[in-house]
Amino acid sequence: MDTNPEPFESLDLDPEEFRKLGYRSVDMITDYYASIRELPVFPNSTSVEVEEVFRENLPETGQDPQHILDEWQSKVLPYTTHLGSPRYFGFVNGSGTMIGTLAEALAASVNMNTGGWKPAPAATEIERQTIAWMAELIHYPTDCGGLFTSGGTMANFTALQTALRNIAPYDTTVKGLQNKAFSGRFTVYMSDHEGHISIVRAADLLNLGRESIRLVKSREDFTMDTQDLEQKLDEDIAQGDVPFCVVGQVGSINVGAIDPLVEIAEICRQRGIWFHADGACGAVGAMLPEKRPQYQGLELADSVTLDPHKWLYIPYECGCVLVRYPEKLRRAFSLTAPYLRGTLPSDYTGLWYLDYGPQMSRGFRALKVWMSLKHYGAEGYRNLLSQNIRCVEYLDACVRRDKDFEPLHKPNLLMYCFRYAPRDLRQRWDDPETLNDYLDQLNQQIADEIQRSGVAFIMTSRIRGRVIIRLSVCSHRTTPEDIDIVLAKLKEIGEKLIRM
Amino acid sequence: MDTNPEPFESLDLDPEEFRKLGYRSVDMITDYYASIRELPVFPNSTSVEVEEVFRENLPETGQDPQHILDEWQSKVLPYTTHLGSPRYFGFVNGSGTMIGTLAEALAASVNMNTGGWKPAPAATEIERQTIAWMAELIHYPTDCGGLFTSGGTMANFTALQTALRNIAPYDTTVKGLQNKAFSGRFTVYMSDHEGHISIVRAADLLNLGRESIRLVKSREDFTMDTQDLEQKLDEDIAQGDVPFCVVGQVGSINVGAIDPLVEIAEICRQRGIWFHADGACGAVGAMLPEKRPQYQGLELADSVTLDPHKWLYIPYECGCVLVRYPEKLRRAFSLTAPYLRGTLPSDYTGLWYLDYGPQMSRGFRALKVWMSLKHYGAEGYRNLLSQNIRCVEYLDACVRRDKDFEPLHKPNLLMYCFRYAPRDLRQRWDDPETLNDYLDQLNQQIADEIQRSGVAFIMTSRIRGRVIIRLSVCSHRTTPEDIDIVLAKLKEIGEKLIRM
Repeated sequence: MDTNPEPFESLDLDPEEFRKLGYRSVDMITDYYASIRELPVFPNSTSVEVEEVFRENLPETGQDPQHILDEWQSKVLPYTTHLGSPRYFGFVNGSGTMIGTLAEALAASVNMNTGGWKPAPAATEIERQTIAWMAELIHYPTDCGGLFTSGGTMANFTALQTALRNIAPYDTTVKGLQNKAFSGRFTVYMSDHEGHISIVRAADLLNLGRESIRLVKSREDFTMDTQDLEQKLDEDIAQGDVPFCVVGQVGSINVGAIDPLVEIAEICRQRGIWFHADGACGAVGAMLPEKRPQYQGLELADSVTLDPHKWLYIPYECGCVLVRYPEKLRRAFSLTAPYLRGTLPSDYTGLWYLDYGPQMSRGFRALKVWMSLKHYGAEGYRNLLSQNIRCVEYLDACVRRDKDFEPLHKPNLLMYCFRYAPRDLRQRWDDPETLNDYLDQLNQQIADEIQRSGVAFIMTSRIRGRVIIRLSVCSHRTTPEDIDIVLAKLKEIGEKLIRM
Repeated sequence: MDTNPEPFESLDLDPEEFRKLGYRSVDMITDYYASIRELPVFPNSTSVEVEEVFRENLPETGQDPQHILDEWQSKVLPYTTHLGSPRYFGFVNGSGTMIGTLAEALAASVNMNTGGWKPAPAATEIERQTIAWMAELIHYPTDCGGLFTSGGTMANFTALQTALRNIAPYDTTVKGLQNKAFSGRFTVYMSDHEGHISIVRAADLLNLGRESIRLVKSREDFTMDTQDLEQKLDEDIAQGDVPFCVVGQVGSINVGAIDPLVEIAEICRQRGIWFHADGACGAVGAMLPEKRPQYQGLELADSVTLDPHKWLYIPYECGCVLVRYPEKLRRAFSLTAPYLRGTLPSDYTGLWYLDYGPQMSRGFRALKVWMSLKHYGAEGYRNLLSQNIRCVEYLDACVRRDKDFEPLHKPNLLMYCFRYAPRDLRQRWDDPETLNDYLDQLNQQIADEIQRSGVAFIMTSRIRGRVIIRLSVCSHRTTPEDIDIVLAKLKEIGEKLIRM
């Protein structure tokens, strides 16, 4: 019936050819995992070199898929930073779960669109169940709403938008922030040292403006000073601002501090302000009985961010936001206004996640979390989290007994900050300011050189004006031996740099 | 040295056990692809039933991973909507590429964070090269900026924010839309019938407010009426609004219409307004020589959205946005203000995508696009796209020669709308209004019943006030035989419903 004589073809490979490619991919992944402890953590190439490796004209004709897998081995792996390495201590990045890796291929094969129930029945229900598990893990009410996101930024974005939409004194869906009849300015609060940049990013994306972020003083232990919070809130309200959200950090990015959640919740309750707990890095620590008391008050938060691709070791991308009452999430995102019905399915059976978050089309992110939680169980995760904390405690002990290091804080969760400041050097220098400037530069150079050495990947941060070395122990493969290796290398490089 | 006597363990499986699980996953995927033509497209279960299937307590202890794969077969696959089926004509969803499926597992294994160059050297450079290929495919300048996003909504969101940040008469990063000294209202323009909901969603997320979306009249052929556009722009400017972006649809969601791009570009140029081309569904049609003339002017757009997870068949998630000048994207998203330096890496070697888009942590989305483009080549893609268009043309021919169907428009790209309106019935009915109301209901019922039958997945839309049947031919597996099957089923159900 088709008048065109060309035969119809699909992109599909012959099943046996696909199976062979699949097995080879599995072999490559197996070998990769088996070698991950030995690989240089960072390739030590310049961006110009790597750009050159991948420069290629748009292929006009198709290439042999076996050749493409060859390139995985010859071109991609040699220029990879290995976030799964036991000595990757950089960003707070999960080290990946093996079953999560397989889940990604399975999810891609069925390719369900979790924007809606109809194009994704199983994927939607798996997400619903897994979200309830996430809540249960951190002792948050399991009848909450929530969904998986691309990461912590979009989780915090979702929470802030939900806060704004539910707290604002007018309907912000219609006029947004362009309501000229409204004279107030919406403001958000977080602590000055340890408030996370993704909150600033979220406020920026929502066009609240960076000025809307009000920084609250922090105490000596890096937690939020709630007296200052109350004072700033009341001052701002008095001068016409509309504080709509306070963000408590739950496992802060540098030192793993947990803000005083019960107090913040009460301050927010009294003033009708949304309390968002940003636990992207640390919320899951609530599953540890010995840490539980610090998390008191998390259950009072109106919303919580927690990233499975951080401390649940899930491969990228997987953030998560929980919101105490699902209908508040729906109020913030649903677009099922009558005039839009035409482009949406008529039959709203089941849960349509597109009404509960920023994305419309959505992949099957929940599968890798669902499978990983089933594979390891809550017990397995508790053991791994404890193990990471034991490594941090071990690191702290090493730092404190070594005259060449200066600790910055008590260890708590998975992050740890300190600096290299040999006692000899400190004694030789008269002016503390000049000494500190020198140490800033020295610690930065040490971190850069360690990265380039491939032995470990560590980063710096700036705290209270000074450069410090920051290690995040977020790999389930890390042991105290890895801590020994990185500290030895750090001292070796530090001594060399001082002699130069 | 560690005082805790418990041995350190990782989440890793024994290599041979992992290999076995991996092979089994590959076997399941191979079997799945081999059976995809025969599977019922939709499981025909209620959400209550499926929710029950996956209801389970949080696992306390870990489960055997083989058991988890058993559940993939026994629980997930039976409740899957098969977007890769040749008779899935629902949302504009790509049907997946086999090599893209393997790419997802490979990407997860190395788990690079494409937010930055240092945690992702190869992934960053592959994204950079693949973005240039995307531009080349649609004849857009290849020195543009751009990046892969979670989907079309976030691509349009990125484009709109970039437009706002670069066009606004004050620095919107500081005060956002809360600049009380600014009296103007920012407005966005798109066509009334075929402007896509993701633009409304993007404006909503950016807190521009839904009122900021100004709907421009469309012509008989569903393209934007540029006279009305000019009139609306000038009226709005006269009354103090600040039009900052006009969105041209490039392959509209219902009928595949392409707005008059050259005219829109010129209207925008004259007034200093950003021209965004939303080609989420259809931009890649520009690679077909026979369609190229319709795409004239696409190269003049300030930004373009195109979704590889739509008409390039890439598995979820993969949207894409191109922006003519990379520094404009950077101006909209970079957060490297000095006061934030502390939480960002000190050494900005290479390209850090977190400065060019909304996400901070980012997965390795580019890999599946890179591998798929290499596997099929531009030539392979042109053949597949032509084939989809031939199916739509065949569908149109069938509709036009059958007295029971009413066509709505000339076929163009991959979408097609018509309705079931048997001539007998039309002749029997006196009042056209009552007839149309009946046909609205009838067509909706037909679509719902076809979904439930599992034979095909089709949807309705509402165009010019009336319910129509919409088919999107976005599977590389679809042939004219599949069109025959869905039309026969449609008539069978229609006749049955009329007799009832």
